[in-house]
Amino acid sequence: MPLHAVNTETETLSMEQLRDAMRQVGEERYHHRHPFHLLMHDGKLTRGQLQAWALNRYYYQNTIPIKDAIILSRGDDADFRRAWRKRIVDHDGDSNSPDGGIKRWLKLAEATGLDPERVAGKREVLPATRFAANEYLNLVRTRPLLEAVASSLTELFSRDLITLRMDRLRLHYPWLSGGLDYFEARLTQAPEDAAFAIRYVYEHAKTRDEQEKAIQALRDKCDILWAQLDALYFAYVQPGWPPPGAFRIED
Amino acid sequence: MPLHAVNTETETLSMEQLRDAMRQVGEERYHHRHPFHLLMHDGKLTRGQLQAWALNRYYYQNTIPIKDAIILSRGDDADFRRAWRKRIVDHDGDSNSPDGGIKRWLKLAEATGLDPERVAGKREVLPATRFAANEYLNLVRTRPLLEAVASSLTELFSRDLITLRMDRLRLHYPWLSGGLDYFEARLTQAPEDAAFAIRYVYEHAKTRDEQEKAIQALRDKCDILWAQLDALYFAYVQPGWPPPGAFRIED
Repeated sequence: MPLHAVNTETETLSMEQLRDAMRQVGEERYHHRHPFHLLMHDGKLTRGQLQAWALNRYYYQNTIPIKDAIILSRGDDADFRRAWRKRIVDHDGDSNSPDGGIKRWLKLAEATGLDPERVAGKREVLPATRFAANEYLNLVRTRPLLEAVASSLTELFSRDLITLRMDRLRLHYPWLSGGLDYFEARLTQAPEDAAFAIRYVYEHAKTRDEQEKAIQALRDKCDILWAQLDALYFAYVQPGWPPPGAFRIED
Repeated sequence: MPLHAVNTETETLSMEQLRDAMRQVGEERYHHRHPFHLLMHDGKLTRGQLQAWALNRYYYQNTIPIKDAIILSRGDDADFRRAWRKRIVDHDGDSNSPDGGIKRWLKLAEATGLDPERVAGKREVLPATRFAANEYLNLVRTRPLLEAVASSLTELFSRDLITLRMDRLRLHYPWLSGGLDYFEARLTQAPEDAAFAIRYVYEHAKTRDEQEKAIQALRDKCDILWAQLDALYFAYVQPGWPPPGAFRIED
């Protein structure tokens, strides 16, 4: 049912309508449509451009468990916190799986030919990458918990993107194939997390206005992802120049 | 005296050396070097591109008194707060001069042909502009007060840039000449503010390490200004595409 057929004053969305509205945001704004990803999936990026992507995206990856710890700190009951805590374990690891998503991302960066310590040092990250990732922290720190949770719902879309990406990376950049553990793990983690989060948003958004604010939070999150690829495209694809102090591609 | 001739372990910089170090940062990183400004000053920007600049820069202008209010809230004595309060008056106005910098910037935006209410609504601002301006709030909120004050020292460089800009805007875009009150006022405000801030940094940075952190805060501020022009160039000059929901130039 198209959104515009719903009276936004009075009617709250059903679970199905809410999911449809979230998916509509993804269709319009999720970064699967970004030209940098289109070039990546067409095999049109150079090794240096993939290095710039891996190095900058590392900053974002490194921010995710901090973002989730902020949400954890705002959690209103133990069941919520227990469920959300899983996300931090997924990224930081535990005794069973000491790796975790951040270490896996470093393996991907290493597969592009970068020294993982150089990447982990974060000194050559684009300022625009830092500003966008830090805005995600601002969002979950300052908005209502409902909106902080809703901003995670890009995970409704990530499985399809990751499935396509793993296929295309193996096809076009076989030398990267050893570094795809991060994506492998996200294939199962992301849908689990998204199922919990959309259920939480549906159950805790009491009014249509709160539902619309949750949908807006997802739009804002999409902007945070999109802006990171704009910055990469501008600095490393063309015409573009990295700002003073940022990573430079070696010819 | 060039910085590298100073023993960064032991020697604190003199007032002159500190100012030289700050000016060196400006030479390397201040946005007077940014290609978007070079195009502007060569008369190579279209009216639509100047509209995009005025509309996005408004978001930043609107953030400045908020930034200064955060610094005011962290001020450690009444003399400091009294001096710093002037900045908020400069931007927000008072009974003597109800205009203030924000209203003056709206006059500039209006001179580009935009409805000032549309600009003040901030709905079409580039996400990257918001993220960069919000990062300025993060900086002054979370870093030591010394570094928050030091981050304002781009005003050491702004007078030269504004003098050049007013000259070039009148020359290349005479239809903008009625909207330059903002820059006119900044010609005297910025140097006053910079003189106070560099004196404060010199007097309150007790060690070379604190001086270096103050210099780094100025670098970080330059990154915040630079990233805003990168985003404008990418979205509105070329090749570029504004992200979903952002201002679009009408042909």
